[in-house]
Amino acid sequence: MIRKYTFGTPIPTDAVVLSLPAETDPVPFFTLSQSGKQMTLTRKLSPEDCLFGLGESVRGINKRGFLYRSWNSDVFNHTESTESLYSSHNFLVFFGPESCFGIYLDDPGRITWDLGYTQTDTAVITSENGDLDLYVLEEDSLTELARAFRRLTGRSYLPPRWAFGYIQSRWGYASEQEVRTVAGEHRKHGIPLDGVCLDIDYMDNFKNFTWRKDAFPDLNRFSADMKKEHIRLIPIIDAGIKEEPGYAPYDSGKAGGFFCKKEDGTDFTAAVWPGVCCFPDFMREDARRWFGSLYTPLLEAGVEGFWNDMNEPALFYTEERVQEAFRRAEELCGGNVDYEAMWGLKNAFNGIENNPEDYRSFFHSADGQPVRHDKVHNLYGASMTRATAEAFRRFDPDKRFLLFSRSSFIGAHRNGGIWQGDNFSWWSHLKMALQMLPNLNLCGFLFSGCDLGGFGCNVTEDLLARFLQLGVFMPLMRNHSALHTREQEIYRFSSLDIMRDTVRVRYALLPFLYSEFMKAALTNGMYFRPLAFDYPEDRRAVHTEDQIMLGEGCMIAPVLEQNAVGRHVYLPEDMLMIRFRSPEDYDLIPLDRGDHWIDLSLREFPLFVKKDHPVLLCPGGESTELLDDHIFTAVCRTDREVTYDLYRDDGSDPDPVLSQHLTKAVLPADAACSSAVPGVAISSLVL
Amino acid sequence: MIRKYTFGTPIPTDAVVLSLPAETDPVPFFTLSQSGKQMTLTRKLSPEDCLFGLGESVRGINKRGFLYRSWNSDVFNHTESTESLYSSHNFLVFFGPESCFGIYLDDPGRITWDLGYTQTDTAVITSENGDLDLYVLEEDSLTELARAFRRLTGRSYLPPRWAFGYIQSRWGYASEQEVRTVAGEHRKHGIPLDGVCLDIDYMDNFKNFTWRKDAFPDLNRFSADMKKEHIRLIPIIDAGIKEEPGYAPYDSGKAGGFFCKKEDGTDFTAAVWPGVCCFPDFMREDARRWFGSLYTPLLEAGVEGFWNDMNEPALFYTEERVQEAFRRAEELCGGNVDYEAMWGLKNAFNGIENNPEDYRSFFHSADGQPVRHDKVHNLYGASMTRATAEAFRRFDPDKRFLLFSRSSFIGAHRNGGIWQGDNFSWWSHLKMALQMLPNLNLCGFLFSGCDLGGFGCNVTEDLLARFLQLGVFMPLMRNHSALHTREQEIYRFSSLDIMRDTVRVRYALLPFLYSEFMKAALTNGMYFRPLAFDYPEDRRAVHTEDQIMLGEGCMIAPVLEQNAVGRHVYLPEDMLMIRFRSPEDYDLIPLDRGDHWIDLSLREFPLFVKKDHPVLLCPGGESTELLDDHIFTAVCRTDREVTYDLYRDDGSDPDPVLSQHLTKAVLPADAACSSAVPGVAISSLVL
Repeated sequence: MIRKYTFGTPIPTDAVVLSLPAETDPVPFFTLSQSGKQMTLTRKLSPEDCLFGLGESVRGINKRGFLYRSWNSDVFNHTESTESLYSSHNFLVFFGPESCFGIYLDDPGRITWDLGYTQTDTAVITSENGDLDLYVLEEDSLTELARAFRRLTGRSYLPPRWAFGYIQSRWGYASEQEVRTVAGEHRKHGIPLDGVCLDIDYMDNFKNFTWRKDAFPDLNRFSADMKKEHIRLIPIIDAGIKEEPGYAPYDSGKAGGFFCKKEDGTDFTAAVWPGVCCFPDFMREDARRWFGSLYTPLLEAGVEGFWNDMNEPALFYTEERVQEAFRRAEELCGGNVDYEAMWGLKNAFNGIENNPEDYRSFFHSADGQPVRHDKVHNLYGASMTRATAEAFRRFDPDKRFLLFSRSSFIGAHRNGGIWQGDNFSWWSHLKMALQMLPNLNLCGFLFSGCDLGGFGCNVTEDLLARFLQLGVFMPLMRNHSALHTREQEIYRFSSLDIMRDTVRVRYALLPFLYSEFMKAALTNGMYFRPLAFDYPEDRRAVHTEDQIMLGEGCMIAPVLEQNAVGRHVYLPEDMLMIRFRSPEDYDLIPLDRGDHWIDLSLREFPLFVKKDHPVLLCPGGESTELLDDHIFTAVCRTDREVTYDLYRDDGSDPDPVLSQHLTKAVLPADAACSSAVPGVAISSLVL
Repeated sequence: MIRKYTFGTPIPTDAVVLSLPAETDPVPFFTLSQSGKQMTLTRKLSPEDCLFGLGESVRGINKRGFLYRSWNSDVFNHTESTESLYSSHNFLVFFGPESCFGIYLDDPGRITWDLGYTQTDTAVITSENGDLDLYVLEEDSLTELARAFRRLTGRSYLPPRWAFGYIQSRWGYASEQEVRTVAGEHRKHGIPLDGVCLDIDYMDNFKNFTWRKDAFPDLNRFSADMKKEHIRLIPIIDAGIKEEPGYAPYDSGKAGGFFCKKEDGTDFTAAVWPGVCCFPDFMREDARRWFGSLYTPLLEAGVEGFWNDMNEPALFYTEERVQEAFRRAEELCGGNVDYEAMWGLKNAFNGIENNPEDYRSFFHSADGQPVRHDKVHNLYGASMTRATAEAFRRFDPDKRFLLFSRSSFIGAHRNGGIWQGDNFSWWSHLKMALQMLPNLNLCGFLFSGCDLGGFGCNVTEDLLARFLQLGVFMPLMRNHSALHTREQEIYRFSSLDIMRDTVRVRYALLPFLYSEFMKAALTNGMYFRPLAFDYPEDRRAVHTEDQIMLGEGCMIAPVLEQNAVGRHVYLPEDMLMIRFRSPEDYDLIPLDRGDHWIDLSLREFPLFVKKDHPVLLCPGGESTELLDDHIFTAVCRTDREVTYDLYRDDGSDPDPVLSQHLTKAVLPADAACSSAVPGVAISSLVL
């Protein structure tokens, strides 16, 4: 059951696809209070209540005990005490002995989620805008709650099948030659590869929709060449358009009046990578259409995937903030600088970036009415994603394109994926990535993944290996790193063979993982989910924070510690462990319900599978296009005949009908009896 | 066996107490190479080699796989990628199937420890100075290696017994009244308390050895009053002396010429808390004596404990760096500020703090010879500690004083304890604290502890509770937090009763923990150590990163995760688990060798004890002075008569003889038979 409650005059967000009448009776589950515009929901928590949701946020799968703020932020330096990340996903589920419901605040402004932080037994949720649609979802189970939320907000984005391949990326690839070398090294070393991301360095002075003719003389030919090798180029597009008369995107945007405006009606400008930029007003349909049209030359050049960045929007500085800091510096210069003055000055310079005052200083146009940016701040990235997705549909309505964004809001999950933001080469960020995935799924973002190896800081060899082992199971499997950090392409390390075999396992599992993903997406299900969804009665499972469910019958439990030789795993039921070393070399070990220590050397990583749920392995290949998804080895812990519905399609149909793409794989009963591992069926299948 | 190798002309550091001749044959275990002054030691690592040591540093107990730098740094913002913390402890142990040896680099300059970071199978250690004594220690066991290192560097500091009590601290206690209230709230709520730290706010404008007469009208009387309530005041002392004619410490330091000098012979100045300061040249005996004498009025006022801070030394800024940043700002002001210029400017302002150029711009005097600071940088905090400890000995040679420092070097372990630096209210810092403790012990720093609850950032209630549960076992048990963060005195939280009971367990265990500490200190043993020390043949134990051994027979395994309802524990042998809820309420559960899941609600924390090793609990009390350490409940997993040597002294003797202070506690054989828990002896003892 979904009920809608309307407060004030909500600004349309495009998050919800279900049209519901607003209820008039009181909001259940919460005490409401108002203070000025601000609206607050308060609820007592029982000691056993768990909270799931909030998509992209720090800390555990269970969000209880911390304070979060919905405020999309470019926070390169995020840690466990960071209250806001790059996206805001305002869906929260309350799960406990007495409660199984969720709330969605359709409100693109700032929201504070005090989830047992100030008082451990109280959740206090505050909307600063006070203008919002509040949806209350009530179902019998967590799984049904997730499904109801997807009914409310629409089906998850479907990427093309090739996007499940391994993608190599780095801020710093500066020429066609360099990208060719990177791709070539992968091929040379037998590391499968489906895509290479182009970061800002491919552009001409960081200007969107341009490229450096010296370094990338002919992007069309380059793109075509790479595609022959089954490798796609995936260029980055930023939100800001450089203010530079004569630069076509600026000229056309200016002519159309498509940029966000200051109160005086002039274009708002702030510096990002290319210098001073204007910011498209993605809330306007005409501005989205104009911005989307700018992708056309790249699409015509054969590009089939993009990543949208800097769309919180990040603001390096505005003229106003810089002058303010300079004024403070001038005041102090020569005078007696005590430490408070000095810190004030440092803060003034540091606070130039993403300054709240700047976010209050410009306006969008919503249905012709000016809306101050901070009221709709969290919608910006989602609206950019929408502009891009609309452009794709116009360019080729019969094809799926790859798109993943840094910033997002609910609704964007229909139009693209997201990466989990600019992370660090930290073990704690590896763990955070794992813990974030089920909550992203709950909020509709099924196509996601973190920067494997970590974006900022220097990776260590073992950290990259362990990141990749988690990456095997992430829909978006991208190795990405930042300028000035240690280069982290797999082939640079002495344990190249270990990491190559890890990526090869991904490709062997790819048809199966793709099948699991598509079935989840097309049934409004979850690809990743907390253990609580499958074992709501099992307190241990409900509180497990370092293992997550995958697809219909799997569970992953990656190693998250440096120098670890294994890890503890809790099995909520009897399962089969597949301990991978390579697609050809793995152990099949039936394990009973309960606690287990699993030895896991650096080259080993486990997949756990419920009884009677087969896992299918194909022979693999160096790219998704070369995979043979007709011949499989199926393994399953079972003592009877079992079947699996394998989803296969052309990898490109934007609106596939699930039932038309399923092939029934049958593991005969005797596969179990004749197997070398008692209780485990191993069967060769041709499908 | 300890061998010494001398390179170049080492600067005396006071780290070593054993006079050894320098060997002339080649250094074993390593390949040596030189490049300019720089000296590099290289060694191939076997896959199974573990590295222990480096005392205060980030990451795991096993240091392998990362790169560390010895360079004492004020790094409030430290994370797992921070290469240098507040102290440098250049002792590293190599332990593997083929190796059991340690090296100590007696070198107070910058050292890089690439421990399998660049190449996973190679350790590369580089001294920038190249002038050093290298000690190679070889023994049959890790325990003997640790003992040999202590023979080389001297017995660990002995704090007074009261310093094992609970200490409350906060940057921000601004008046006598506020401190009285804090102390009173502890007494009112039955939270034991032995000390309150005074942070910089007690001083008159942050000037060392002064206090604000408005807020602390009579420190003598205040100190005496508090002591009547069995609570000690523990004031902070910083390294810098404000440059202010008329301020007595400055005048006397200036008159004596005791400050560090620039190349032109004038005093080096840099701003810290009080503004522009001079920095005592603690390497000079006369300067130490002068600085130490400044403690006298406070000692005479009855103060028995201090903490020394800012002694890396931290430098907020020098005039040179400020003017440089201003020049850059002026250059940019009004011009075209692109993002690179802007970032350059931000970096210029941020880089003002602790600037390497400043550390190269001043000089110490070592035996009359000028020594540039950066060559001996890591010695500064240790030398300040030495000055203070020498002052204590002069003031009262028959008494132990509490002293703990932020910065240190090996050698300082004889003169004082250290806290584990300015940490954050992070779960990852809770874990880091645990992992750091055994390595601190290995380097001689037995008296240590982290800021419980975390210094920076806002604590959550459960994090504080879990921090305290680890704190129960730390020699220094201090709750400390920073200005502008959430107040974290125990009595402010709804789970006050849980946390009070945790501190009460500390006091019930205090005579036992004190006994374990003193026996470790007086026998050059370790209070905390990695499991590898006790179970070198057990690969699982060797690689255990979230449990540590304590004293003769105990092991701790705290909860390190938010919202956890328990944790996995690996027992390398059969043990008794004492699961504490309070001194009166605990479970005694014998557990066999192997893996266990332990249920641990927020109020529960476990202590694991080897067979035949008794644990003694006293009735507790509200301060150490009120503890009755004659009546005990002893518990032990055993099937025979067992004894325990309880160490008791007056808590103040600076040079106690171990054998004179031991009382044999005997648990009769029938205590086990008659116990309610089969196999566990429970016995009341009067000793």
